[in-house]
Parts: sequence; C-alpha cells; structure tokens
Amino acid sequence: MGVLITRQEFSLASPIEVRHAIRQGVWTDHTVALAANYTQANLVVLPRDVAYDFLLFCVRNPKPCPLLDVTDVGSSIPTRAAPAADLRTDLPRYRVYQHGMLVDEPSSIVHWWRDDLVGFLLGCSYTFEHALIEAGVRLRHVEQGTNVPMFRTSRACLPAGDFHGPLVVSMRPIRGDQVGRAVEVTSRYPKAHGAPVWVGDPSELGITDLGTPDWGEALWPEAGEVPVFWACGVTPQAVASQTRPPFMITHAPGHMFITDLPITELATES
Amino acid sequence: MGVLITRQEFSLASPIEVRHAIRQGVWTDHTVALAANYTQANLVVLPRDVAYDFLLFCVRNPKPCPLLDVTDVGSSIPTRAAPAADLRTDLPRYRVYQHGMLVDEPSSIVHWWRDDLVGFLLGCSYTFEHALIEAGVRLRHVEQGTNVPMFRTSRACLPAGDFHGPLVVSMRPIRGDQVGRAVEVTSRYPKAHGAPVWVGDPSELGITDLGTPDWGEALWPEAGEVPVFWACGVTPQAVASQTRPPFMITHAPGHMFITDLPITELATES
Repeated sequence: MGVLITRQEFSLASPIEVRHAIRQGVWTDHTVALAANYTQANLVVLPRDVAYDFLLFCVRNPKPCPLLDVTDVGSSIPTRAAPAADLRTDLPRYRVYQHGMLVDEPSSIVHWWRDDLVGFLLGCSYTFEHALIEAGVRLRHVEQGTNVPMFRTSRACLPAGDFHGPLVVSMRPIRGDQVGRAVEVTSRYPKAHGAPVWVGDPSELGITDLGTPDWGEALWPEAGEVPVFWACGVTPQAVASQTRPPFMITHAPGHMFITDLPITELATES
Repeated sequence: MGVLITRQEFSLASPIEVRHAIRQGVWTDHTVALAANYTQANLVVLPRDVAYDFLLFCVRNPKPCPLLDVTDVGSSIPTRAAPAADLRTDLPRYRVYQHGMLVDEPSSIVHWWRDDLVGFLLGCSYTFEHALIEAGVRLRHVEQGTNVPMFRTSRACLPAGDFHGPLVVSMRPIRGDQVGRAVEVTSRYPKAHGAPVWVGDPSELGITDLGTPDWGEALWPEAGEVPVFWACGVTPQAVASQTRPPFMITHAPGHMFITDLPITELATES
C-alpha cells in the first residue's frame, strides 16, 4: 500500500499480480492496458433462477455475448478463466442493480454475494483491439485515448425467456486497405466478438447519426476510411438491464476482470 | 407412400424434402448421406429442471458438445436450425429413457412430448467428414462403409452440476501427408467438433487397444498413417445416460436430425 504503480508498469505484469493489487485496493482505476497480453472480460452476476435464460441468450447470440466462463451456482471462482481468482474482490469497481435500479457502486461485492448467484464472464473487445494493433491496423480512438463509439442498432438479438433487446455495436473507422486485415484478425477471435457484423453504411443498422453514439465518444470516418461495426459486449448488459431482474451485479464500465487466458490462446486453431 | 426412394436420390434432396419423407414414414432408415450438403445434428431432449446443467455442460465442453440450437421450454421447433421442422416427428427413430433405462424406441415422440421439455441439437461429425472428403482427405471407414471407431478416454470433461464423465473421441487413420490438411479443414468447423484433440499415441488418452473400440468398428492405421482423434458427439449422450435423469429422449444411433444449415455456412468466417 502507498506504493504508486503506473499503468505502464502494470501493462507487463501478470494477471495474478494485477488482480492482487486490485484486491488489496492498491489499484482502483479502470483496467485498460493492464496485463496487456491477457484477455479481459465483462462480468454479469445473476441469481440461478434467471441464469438459465441468460445463459441461453448468450448461446443464441455468441457474437455480442461470447462466454469465457460461467461459475457454479454460489461460487465466485472462475475455475476455467482464472482458478486462483475471486470475482467478488478482483475487479476494481462493480455496479449492483435491484429491479434494474443502480443501488451501489462498490469496490468489493463480498457483502452482496449470495448462495444462489452465478457469475458470467464474457469476452471483451480489448482483446481483439490488442491483436489489431499488433497486426498494424490503425485504431484512431486508441491513438486519441477516447472511448470507442457504441450504438444501439435496429437489429434484434435472438431472445431467450425474458431476455431480449437490440444488438449493440462498436464502430471503428478503418482505412480501405486495412479492412481485409481487420476482418482476418478479428475472425480469429470468436470469443472476443469475432468478425465485423457490418461494414459501411450505418443507416442499414438503423444508425442515423454517427455523431451521437449511445455510449463512448463520436469518431468520424476520414477520407479513405470506412466505418466497420463489431458486435459489442455492452449488448448483454443493456439487455440484462432492460429485463430488470430482481438482482444483478456487473463490472463498472472499463473496470474489467483480468483472466489468466493469454490473448494468443484465445485465437481459434485455424 | 409406397414410392421407393434411394439414399442416392435423397443425397441431393433438400432438408425439407427429406424431413417430410421421414415425418410421413416414407423414410425410416439411418440418415447417412441424406441431404448431403446440409448439417446433421445429434438430439438430446431433457426436462427444464436439468436443462440448465446440461446447457452449461455443453458450454464448458464445446468440442464434444457444439450447440447448434436449443428450443424454448416446451417447444419442439428448432427456430434457428430449421424453423419449419418439428423435433417430435422429423427424425426416423428415437430412444426414450427413464432414469437411464431405455423404455421405448419409437419413430415419433408426439405422445412422449411434455410442456417442460427442451430440445438440444448438437453438431455431428458427418459435417466435417463431408468437408474432409471434399478436400481430398482419405477416410478409410467411409471407403469401407463401416462405422468410425469411438473410444472412452481417460480425460474428464469439465463437469456441470450432475453432468460429468469422460471425453469420448472418434479415431480416423490419416496419412502423414494429409494430417495438416485434415487439421486445417476441421478447424474451420468448431460447430462440428473442430480440430483434433490428439494426434498419435493412443495410450496418452488412456486407450490401450485400438482393436476394441467402445462404439463403432475397429480400424487399424496402416503404414504411413497416424491415428487422429476428434472429440465425439457420443460424449453428451454417454454423459447424459450416466447421469440417469428422470426423463430423456435422444435420436437413435445414426438416425440424426437434418437441419437447414448448409455445411458451407457452418464454417467459421476465417
């Protein structure tokens, strides 16, 4: 405690070191670029009685909702993604909802945990952005240090029980000569939203104005760039919020769970 | 009725034509090579109260248990895999189990259907074998017209609730110069068991004798061939049987469900 660690220092740290610092309260900020070679994940925690429908929703909509791990009922240990971790303490900030209303934004959910809760870890676009940058694809929102723009679309997800809602997409302007490479690279990461769902005219997705994203910050395609749209991990959170389950916990935006899964291992075999 | 249709004629038929003939009782035999360009699926039907654990088992073990579709509770319509089909009538033969005991082997399950049942359709190796043959990979069990040999391994699947058990694999002897191609082709079909789980020495999988498969017929690698092992769709059935749920229905071996999904569309984008 009291030792200041920079984001840059932590970018080369192991997931276990970073999670330890988060658990101890030494690191409280967002997780962008921490343990940079490892997969980060969105968290959704739901009671068992609605977990079946949410699990089925994820299975039916794998592009916005790629399942990395699902805990056993009552367990906060993600045995496949990070067996030494605890989902109750190892994220820097959480959001707690009752009937869709935000009731708490704590740095630990130990006192909120219950025996009937199930933790879902869902893939996140940080993973494929890392791979895109490694492959030399220019991402202007990363250069500018702004949040990627995200939009509700007119496309409905396949519903499951009470869970239904629109597909949410993120948009990245990509130069014409890099679109092919961007598709190739992201195709290899089906557990991090995979290939784009749409390239080009936003109006076909029901997006009328690129200047007013529903989340994140606007970014206009420049000359020679085309807007490329990927399924977005905000989708399951937006859908779960809309369903207003009696109880739900998520990560706070940008404050993700850092898994032990190397990004290189998340790529498909092909 | 009364019109004899050959398997060869039906190999070029549409899924809807073949399912219609099955529903009418015109076709009662196994489904190998029917509607050959379309994906066939394993069927598992379970009551809602055990469906969550089975769904989670499939999510945790995607190589042996690739989910193609899951029906809504009480519905026998696979809306994503074949929206005009009915899982109660469109397979040539079923097996009905109570507490793990086979109690019926009917050609329709209309009278067994209940409001609490969920139908799971799981990918099947017919799909990738078709792709392997198209790619020029020699499959000797297909040439000989025998069933592929299948083995219980010493590897445990990741458990989920009451569902647990060993990984079952199928073995195909592949010539050394075709192993690379066989991996490339099957990697493109994660919804049909994907890339091999093991290449070479069977003893590492706990298989002591290739001559005594647990299912199918023995096939010895010839000079220049290596045994290649893929995760097998028998796994979920073996696991579900071992769990002895109060009620379960599956397809009869070889009598699969024919989906509307073209095999080419099942390939990943990459």
